Amino acid sequence: MFYIIGLGLCDEKDITVRGLEMSFRRPHQMAAVKGCSRVYLEAYTSILMVQRERLEEFYGKQLIIADRDTVELESDEILRDADKEDVALLVVGDPFGATTHPDILLRARSLRVPTQVIHNASILNAVGCCGLQLYNFGQTVSLVFFTETWKPDSFYDRIKENVDLGMHTLVLLDIKVKEQSDENLARGRKIYEPPRYMTIPQAVTQLVEIESLRQDNILSPSNTLVIAVSRVGGGDKHERIVSGTLSELNGHPPEAFGEPLHSLVIVGKRVHPLEIEYAQEFAIDEENWRRVAETVYGCALD
Amino acid sequence: MFYIIGLGLCDEKDITVRGLEMSFRRPHQMAAVKGCSRVYLEAYTSILMVQRERLEEFYGKQLIIADRDTVELESDEILRDADKEDVALLVVGDPFGATTHPDILLRARSLRVPTQVIHNASILNAVGCCGLQLYNFGQTVSLVFFTETWKPDSFYDRIKENVDLGMHTLVLLDIKVKEQSDENLARGRKIYEPPRYMTIPQAVTQLVEIESLRQDNILSPSNTLVIAVSRVGGGDKHERIVSGTLSELNGHPPEAFGEPLHSLVIVGKRVHPLEIEYAQEFAIDEENWRRVAETVYGCALD
Repeated sequence: MFYIIGLGLCDEKDITVRGLEMSFRRPHQMAAVKGCSRVYLEAYTSILMVQRERLEEFYGKQLIIADRDTVELESDEILRDADKEDVALLVVGDPFGATTHPDILLRARSLRVPTQVIHNASILNAVGCCGLQLYNFGQTVSLVFFTETWKPDSFYDRIKENVDLGMHTLVLLDIKVKEQSDENLARGRKIYEPPRYMTIPQAVTQLVEIESLRQDNILSPSNTLVIAVSRVGGGDKHERIVSGTLSELNGHPPEAFGEPLHSLVIVGKRVHPLEIEYAQEFAIDEENWRRVAETVYGCALD
Repeated sequence: MFYIIGLGLCDEKDITVRGLEMSFRRPHQMAAVKGCSRVYLEAYTSILMVQRERLEEFYGKQLIIADRDTVELESDEILRDADKEDVALLVVGDPFGATTHPDILLRARSLRVPTQVIHNASILNAVGCCGLQLYNFGQTVSLVFFTETWKPDSFYDRIKENVDLGMHTLVLLDIKVKEQSDENLARGRKIYEPPRYMTIPQAVTQLVEIESLRQDNILSPSNTLVIAVSRVGGGDKHERIVSGTLSELNGHPPEAFGEPLHSLVIVGKRVHPLEIEYAQEFAIDEENWRRVAETVYGCALD
């Protein structure tokens, strides 16, 4: 059996009891559960709050690191013998959060390897912590790091579609976990740069930049309400939620947004007064938060 | 502290290790974790695959059943003394899946009770099991039981918005877990009908009925592809995924869709060939599935 197991959002304890039992033999677990012969850990776990060693200690098992390229390109190695023994791939969040996971499941299917998915929380539902109703979200968009010469802006069309309908938009911010410098790339040296995570001010800057190029008037620095979230589910010590206008967030010190990974929510015009009230707790300027909600979004607040 | 803890989608083992440690004192857990003095279980757990007794046995703790009305109307009783001791509310899926949970968190905040949310999988991300990319979903809609005289159709406008953009739509089907007959209601007798769950054929019938009334031509019995899912995450024994056209699903025996709770996904026109390929495995008629994807959705399949 090939198990693909969601780890949830924060640390080693966000795995479900089912996921833990299926992948690791531990004394308090049902004797019938057979531990896996190989357990892969997708490298994006660098965005978990814990190190691999702590995961290994908690799970009582050595983990094999697999970056996303490996999962994509060397899936046959991961799936080796999984028709005869149990193999698990641990991924951050929910197994269906990333496009590469259906691919490996399809491959398993074609190799006649039985599969099982263990679900977990992902940012797509946990973002509800900001107080906005999940029902009121449109499509999710990803924002990649701009370079001098490459500023892909198709996300803007997706945001526009949501904005036109009055829906909220979850914007996932880029991470670069296995980048090579131009020199190392040219010389074929497998030396990687330290991981980079897009910050909230970077994201806001890129959004405003594309708005000023496209001028469809869907984002306004002082009249668009947004909510930044990080380390959702990490409890008081880790989770940060900050709400305000685009320019308020841009002027806020980057460290106030907490540790990566960050996401940003653009509030849609169909917002309900209760959603505004909930997110007011996180506002940089409560008074301005309410003022914009009332005057720009037409919210009738008490 | 007031904990609101997601149970996930299937049974007692879908709780996360963190959630388990926070709500229950169990021998293998950190001694520092103090069990909660009261643990409420939201009554919608009837949609879990397990009985309360099995949950109590697994958790080693008696549970107090709270229906959604109680959570909404008697939140102060649930929150009683939570500033001095630990109280937990267990809910199916993720705590932010239902509108009543932000409400009780807001109430806790106004009572100065500290809160913590333990996230888990919900249908909103786990629906990815059908093979459609979560990024390609628009807003989620709920479909309520029609009666002779009450056929609310605002969901149709939401579906139309998604269809016009080519997005997939997750349709959540109604459940009635605490219904009174007209007679019992009139006599003020607190006697409740057995729970009712909308079936996939019922949902399809209602969708087609509203389409024929509104005639916006967004749903077609033979040309709209849909995917029915039930008991997501329950493994081979429980999970069911069935894909086909609206009329194929309507003509399929209701028991083929598995046990409740059911959800339905309407496939949007932006569908990617890989999504079609993945969901083909679940098709009532694979050939027709591919034919409609190619001719109606314009998918270029191999």
